[in-house]
Amino acid sequence: MSSPTILPTTPPKILPNPGQGLLTKTCTAIDANGQAFQLEAVVEQAITLYLNSQEIVTMMTVGDYPRWLALGYLRNQALLGDDEIVLGVEYDEELSVIIVRTDRMTRFEERQQKKIRTSGCALGTIYADVMDGLASRNIDWQAGDRQWSASFIQKIARNIPQIPSLYLEAGSIHGCVLIKGEEILAYFEDVGRHNAVDKIAGYMLDYQIEGKESCLYTTGRLTSEMVIKSVMMGIPMVISRSGVTEFGARLAQETGLTLVARARGNRFLIFSGAKRVLFDHPADTILKESYDDMG
Amino acid sequence: MSSPTILPTTPPKILPNPGQGLLTKTCTAIDANGQAFQLEAVVEQAITLYLNSQEIVTMMTVGDYPRWLALGYLRNQALLGDDEIVLGVEYDEELSVIIVRTDRMTRFEERQQKKIRTSGCALGTIYADVMDGLASRNIDWQAGDRQWSASFIQKIARNIPQIPSLYLEAGSIHGCVLIKGEEILAYFEDVGRHNAVDKIAGYMLDYQIEGKESCLYTTGRLTSEMVIKSVMMGIPMVISRSGVTEFGARLAQETGLTLVARARGNRFLIFSGAKRVLFDHPADTILKESYDDMG
Repeated sequence: MSSPTILPTTPPKILPNPGQGLLTKTCTAIDANGQAFQLEAVVEQAITLYLNSQEIVTMMTVGDYPRWLALGYLRNQALLGDDEIVLGVEYDEELSVIIVRTDRMTRFEERQQKKIRTSGCALGTIYADVMDGLASRNIDWQAGDRQWSASFIQKIARNIPQIPSLYLEAGSIHGCVLIKGEEILAYFEDVGRHNAVDKIAGYMLDYQIEGKESCLYTTGRLTSEMVIKSVMMGIPMVISRSGVTEFGARLAQETGLTLVARARGNRFLIFSGAKRVLFDHPADTILKESYDDMG
Repeated sequence: MSSPTILPTTPPKILPNPGQGLLTKTCTAIDANGQAFQLEAVVEQAITLYLNSQEIVTMMTVGDYPRWLALGYLRNQALLGDDEIVLGVEYDEELSVIIVRTDRMTRFEERQQKKIRTSGCALGTIYADVMDGLASRNIDWQAGDRQWSASFIQKIARNIPQIPSLYLEAGSIHGCVLIKGEEILAYFEDVGRHNAVDKIAGYMLDYQIEGKESCLYTTGRLTSEMVIKSVMMGIPMVISRSGVTEFGARLAQETGLTLVARARGNRFLIFSGAKRVLFDHPADTILKESYDDMG
């Protein structure tokens, strides 16, 4: 997919922007003593996404970066193919509608029309289409491909949670970070972990950033959905502060994705694709910690 | 909505069933030392839901209680009205398909057919339909309605996380508990917090349990989605271990739902509907704890 919108060639570094009061509002709550207590809570709004004239989905989001959310969603759900050309993205803030327009009808829309003529609306079959698309994407580590050290994973797991963020300000929000080589390029946050990763996909599309040599850090669990999105983006390694589902781990093994979960402090567990990780510590320098307290 | 399926009149108490190896599988991971480490991870499977001949959605679920998940999803999304009669629910485990059949075409299907004839598939508009439906449901506390004490909320927040569960066994799963009065009726877990609450809605439908006098406990964040589902179920109070979004809190205020969040140990914060809570502690018996470390 290519986009004719004129953008700077060097991707801007994106970091969370807490403390502006734009994405949080002050709420008054009452505590267990019956006393009033004020705190910040993240905002959440509904934005309805159209692909040309086709209504696709209503997304609950904090509402920053709607363009990247829309493009990334369509891309990660395989609703926009590599060769489909985006003419523009229109966001109507008042109507909470975002429309992605392509130069011609997309293959997804053609399929939908066919389905509607036969058995009615079938947005649910997106899942089957995505799984079909996944089978052709293999990102197994090959000799010469980039590797990351265990100490880099530990550094990321320790440092990213310290970066000022909406999470640190208000909680109840997931973060997802795109790392190229060892450099943080973009850190997005959103109500759902899938939105944060979709924004990364949209950002990558606009700046034509390849997934190769990149890794993702996420605060969210590594379910099958997160594994599918990562593979769709061509990103070979994902690091999460949280755990995995068995299907998430299995899909990662089948596609060659390196899946690192429960990464907190010096701890982490690799569930798939360990060839991408260089164990650079003598065993006795690693802290012995328990995995038992990790959700 | 009524269901002609014959069921015992007394609802069975549902608790998680860990340790059976049915909903978890052993995964082998590699730790930061390069050593193999075995642990349990929850399974996750795709089940595609049909309402009669209409494909609705593909749900990622641990896969227990598909009947309740299907019925509850349709109910909470306002795809099944109060007066629509379910003839049966067929689950084909091999095909991973579940079909809910009603005695006639539902209003949702009629609307879909109309929309398909005019502007194509529009499952996204479900959201607008749900929000319309919400406006007519007000569950403001009225004099004489049930109240719960602060010490009951604290007991729930302390005790539920101790109940043996998939979460304690494997992590990476959300729980949702239906409490009638002060008695735990059903504790469901699922990969997504929305699935766990949908299973409760399905269970309530089958046993014709009214939301009145009930409360929900959930491990998940109180986003607008959770508030909407609770109100759709007629449940007047929700207690969460996690935080809220601002829109979640606002919707709760508008509908009269009592929203209790960040309930851990003796702490909790009420964001809406505090009239349902009796502050039964002298102020000096409450532990002074910090809210800062709470996601």
